[in-house]
Amino acid sequence: MKKGMAKVSVMYANGEGKTFDGDYYVNKHLPWVSSLLGDALKGATAEKGLGSAAPGSPAPYLGIGTMYFDSVRDFGEAFGPNAEKIMADLPNFTNIEPTVQISEIVI
Amino acid sequence: MKKGMAKVSVMYANGEGKTFDGDYYVNKHLPWVSSLLGDALKGATAEKGLGSAAPGSPAPYLGIGTMYFDSVRDFGEAFGPNAEKIMADLPNFTNIEPTVQISEIVI
Repeated sequence: MKKGMAKVSVMYANGEGKTFDGDYYVNKHLPWVSSLLGDALKGATAEKGLGSAAPGSPAPYLGIGTMYFDSVRDFGEAFGPNAEKIMADLPNFTNIEPTVQISEIVI
Repeated sequence: MKKGMAKVSVMYANGEGKTFDGDYYVNKHLPWVSSLLGDALKGATAEKGLGSAAPGSPAPYLGIGTMYFDSVRDFGEAFGPNAEKIMADLPNFTNIEPTVQISEIVI
């Protein structure tokens, strides 16, 4: 992934009573989303939260999915038409409303 | 970056009155931090927040720096001895106390 590309992070915030099924997320949700987004999606990663800065402190996010596109426009064109059905899958693995960060890669 | 590696995100949350000097961050802070961390640092990226899910909505984070290490232990050993002086550079480019996410890459 390189400078100027769009990076979209979907972040599932930790908190009391929050649940996140990592197996479903990794093995079902993400491959399905990737197939919906098609060639516009230039790369994707997923991560599992382990902790924060202070030793033993909880991770701010239980899980984060990251997607890369050539531009924010490409993201919008690929994601927009699928947004509703993608969001409808969330209750199958989490009760968290994700935080979405759209960024430009600068390094 | 591959499955099993440690990913450390340093995230500067947006908010009223929050300031973030992207030029200093990219051209001074990050290269200096990279030199301090040495060979343990396997890769690093930086991003500038553009927005969130709803069109026109503000980015949750003004900037995010991401560092990759072979393991959380490697991160701790490289970052720990330098933590104090790295943190002391923050007021030179921001008034935000960063959110730190330590994760394991699963995809």
